[in-house]
Amino acid sequence: MQSAAQHTADNGVNVTALLGAREALGQAPEAARFNWKATCRWMHGTHSRSHVQGYYGLGQEQRHRTEFAFDTDHPEVFASEDNGATPVEMVLTGLAGCLTAGVASVAQMRNITLRSVTAVVEGSMDIRGILGMDTDIRNGFDDVRVRFTIDADASREDIEALVAQSQKRSAVYDILTNPTNVTVTVN
Amino acid sequence: MQSAAQHTADNGVNVTALLGAREALGQAPEAARFNWKATCRWMHGTHSRSHVQGYYGLGQEQRHRTEFAFDTDHPEVFASEDNGATPVEMVLTGLAGCLTAGVASVAQMRNITLRSVTAVVEGSMDIRGILGMDTDIRNGFDDVRVRFTIDADASREDIEALVAQSQKRSAVYDILTNPTNVTVTVN
Repeated sequence: MQSAAQHTADNGVNVTALLGAREALGQAPEAARFNWKATCRWMHGTHSRSHVQGYYGLGQEQRHRTEFAFDTDHPEVFASEDNGATPVEMVLTGLAGCLTAGVASVAQMRNITLRSVTAVVEGSMDIRGILGMDTDIRNGFDDVRVRFTIDADASREDIEALVAQSQKRSAVYDILTNPTNVTVTVN
Repeated sequence: MQSAAQHTADNGVNVTALLGAREALGQAPEAARFNWKATCRWMHGTHSRSHVQGYYGLGQEQRHRTEFAFDTDHPEVFASEDNGATPVEMVLTGLAGCLTAGVASVAQMRNITLRSVTAVVEGSMDIRGILGMDTDIRNGFDDVRVRFTIDADASREDIEALVAQSQKRSAVYDILTNPTNVTVTVN
């Protein structure tokens, strides 16, 4: 219960529910096992379409409210048809969305009202890697930069602390900065 | 020039152009520097929208034929509004699209006709990591599995070799399995 005089930020993040989830998962850690999924179908050339809807968590199969579909392709400079974003741009989008959701959540926890948040996320690579021209050049990004511009009811120092905490708890930041085991099989 | 009797696969991948690119980049390696970009805007709660269009490569600014927009959000089980795929599902989509484009390209190089390619990509995590409940649990995926089902004019062995070569040259597979430096700053 808050007094009428007390300011409460509302960034649209339900912190009470998140804190409740944390307590519930402390009692039932097996419910914290999540499994996310995308199903991809090759269309033509380098173009494919992925669908995302079902996932597993809280001990049972779950479904997003709607099915999400994403086209990926290579661009015309690679002699492709450019029917979608490149797969690496999907990864940058995931990083942007993850860190931004984190900024909103942490702001809510810290009672900071956000007015606007934008992020420019860039990843550079030398495509001689994916073309197999030089095995010393990696296929993926050699460097990724995220630049936030945030207008909020907080000092610059507090805004920087928000962003730092978002990084610390971000799934996609962790996925990019640390190695993950990936197994590829053929049915 | 091919004889009428010679079978040539056509998966829609322009291999001649790719081989030409490889030759051109051998002469002018600075053209191989690419920079990919996503621009993200916070909408409300954990929902944000990213746009992808401009990128840099072949020594100049480039643009996709159209702008691609992606909504990311957290699902209702996290007390969010589920206005988009989760950021981690975007990463799985990127991995699926990257490996599938690779399969099509390598098949083309090897003169293998693909009839259908599907991939189910799954990533598991313990969400006590992102909730900050246990610092020994990572935020990102603890394991990622990709299962291909491929119908092609080739033996099982050749299909498995296709998939292995796609992995070897995949940008997103590399991004997941190896660490990348990510710098986050506030303007």
